[in-house]
Amino acid sequence: MGKKCGQQSINFSQPPVITSGANIVGPEEGEGPLASGFDWILDDPLFGEKSWEMAECKMLEESAKLALQKIALQTQDVDFFLAGDLLNQIISSNYAARGLEIPFFGLYGACSTFVEALLLGSILIDGGFAQRVLLSSSSHHLSAERQFRHPVEQGVQRLATAQWTTTASGALVLEMQGEGPRVNRGTVGKVVDMGVSDVHNMGAAMAPAAADTILTHFQDTETNSDSYDLIVTGDLGSVGQAALVDLLKQRGLDLEEKLQDCGLLIYDTGKQDMHAGGSGCGCAAAVFTGLLLQKLREKQYQNLLLVATGALMSPIISQQGESIPAIAHAVAVTG
Amino acid sequence: MGKKCGQQSINFSQPPVITSGANIVGPEEGEGPLASGFDWILDDPLFGEKSWEMAECKMLEESAKLALQKIALQTQDVDFFLAGDLLNQIISSNYAARGLEIPFFGLYGACSTFVEALLLGSILIDGGFAQRVLLSSSSHHLSAERQFRHPVEQGVQRLATAQWTTTASGALVLEMQGEGPRVNRGTVGKVVDMGVSDVHNMGAAMAPAAADTILTHFQDTETNSDSYDLIVTGDLGSVGQAALVDLLKQRGLDLEEKLQDCGLLIYDTGKQDMHAGGSGCGCAAAVFTGLLLQKLREKQYQNLLLVATGALMSPIISQQGESIPAIAHAVAVTG
Repeated sequence: MGKKCGQQSINFSQPPVITSGANIVGPEEGEGPLASGFDWILDDPLFGEKSWEMAECKMLEESAKLALQKIALQTQDVDFFLAGDLLNQIISSNYAARGLEIPFFGLYGACSTFVEALLLGSILIDGGFAQRVLLSSSSHHLSAERQFRHPVEQGVQRLATAQWTTTASGALVLEMQGEGPRVNRGTVGKVVDMGVSDVHNMGAAMAPAAADTILTHFQDTETNSDSYDLIVTGDLGSVGQAALVDLLKQRGLDLEEKLQDCGLLIYDTGKQDMHAGGSGCGCAAAVFTGLLLQKLREKQYQNLLLVATGALMSPIISQQGESIPAIAHAVAVTG
Repeated sequence: MGKKCGQQSINFSQPPVITSGANIVGPEEGEGPLASGFDWILDDPLFGEKSWEMAECKMLEESAKLALQKIALQTQDVDFFLAGDLLNQIISSNYAARGLEIPFFGLYGACSTFVEALLLGSILIDGGFAQRVLLSSSSHHLSAERQFRHPVEQGVQRLATAQWTTTASGALVLEMQGEGPRVNRGTVGKVVDMGVSDVHNMGAAMAPAAADTILTHFQDTETNSDSYDLIVTGDLGSVGQAALVDLLKQRGLDLEEKLQDCGLLIYDTGKQDMHAGGSGCGCAAAVFTGLLLQKLREKQYQNLLLVATGALMSPIISQQGESIPAIAHAVAVTG
């Protein structure tokens, strides 16, 4: 039985196993340096559907099915499905859950959702409530931009600090038994708000939450940066990552060499003009189920800390002048 | 340690205890028949804030604080906070979590969210991951109408089948030990969609999900209608409740005498013109933390099944012609 440790963390006593992972990405993500780790690269972001929203629903559902297919499982072999996405009322997840017909928990943690699902999925398994769970999250550049900022047809110039919402979905199967990387520990984030109100600079809003969760994780679990081969955030982008490095330095911790960010890994920032880098629920999901899972399986990484950050931004409340709260959840995965 | 039973249900081996509950409601709810069970009845739905959205954030946060205050607890005594609401990006919950500073899981299940939180909270406790969790959900008539249907200033005539989104929030404290009603069992819903696309008739969209979850609960947990003093849905309203009774009769089950609905209990349907009855995340939350919790404590109810139903409706996807999926989660509470 798992145990809470420290203020915000959990030690899993029988660490759940990641037995399968799958992802689907859009054309831009397929042109990036991680292409070989993606299962399905779309030529067309509409994915054969009538709208970007329906395309995103299909991406989330198909990546979940693919994760099951890879290990020859059917939907009825799964105890629970956990999912979330960026769209209002998490429609991608709800419509995917309609197709999958698996008992369902809907989550919302903005871009932290993938790790929120990993935490709750691990809790269900380590607590003895499930043998096997399926989890998934997604984002879509074209559905997200028109919901959160400007429809792309308007051609509004993007600011240099803005991140590019990734068109991507990723899914995992977590099991009580099996072969694969294991989820050993996790830290549940608190909502942190340092007063950033610029909706074109999510990185700055999220960096304090990432710093808070990383420091708390080290303290709660009696680990430190030497405990991990890699600490990977998802998704701070270049502005947020620089802010995180600074915030940690102020606390006496130099993690510059050990930190990477899913939003910076997914695009070739030299050739692809993605401004501050990628973002979106699907970014960390696709990078983790692609490159990172592969390296964990090959034991290139023995210990990895995945810290997913969410800017809990909402247009209506931003327009009312409120600042943007953020949250970061972390899981420690062993190869 | 808890155990999954049947396809979708969980038996808690050390049933978590509901040690405190609190709620805040709007003026209309305060004029209804359950007024004596509400802790705080607002004269003004703005609650001293500049917007309805900020009023709803405050309601969710204040009801959570009140649930702690009633048993002399501080926020730092709580392991985890679980919350969700109807607003895009669950802003009421996120901004409340910012104020509470408790490690936070954000949820979205439309009007089923309160029971989704009760299920996950009970899992955290029965699995040994937490000693104490706080959970809350809310809805606000004026913020919900302008988001989902028509801003009330437009004065659009409401259809007879339409439900009235309740202005209410409710919060509970769940603990591993203590005195109070206990959460014994639960059933996690599947998403069900029978093709209803009328956004003014949520009851019809949700009734099939409620029927599915009730029947599955009986089968999974080897219970039947005799196992419960009351089966209370939240919130089908009059149209949805009639549809549920019919659907169950088609399956050979007559529950008409045993069924009540939070959306019908909260208003005086004879005097108050709420059309098909109340709805919204806050409705089941306020009715449960008010009337029902009181009757459970007084042992007037020994066994109660709370079935919260969510219409997973989203304007953008409804406008694209999609039908409305629905979900229902259930918990069995012993007085």
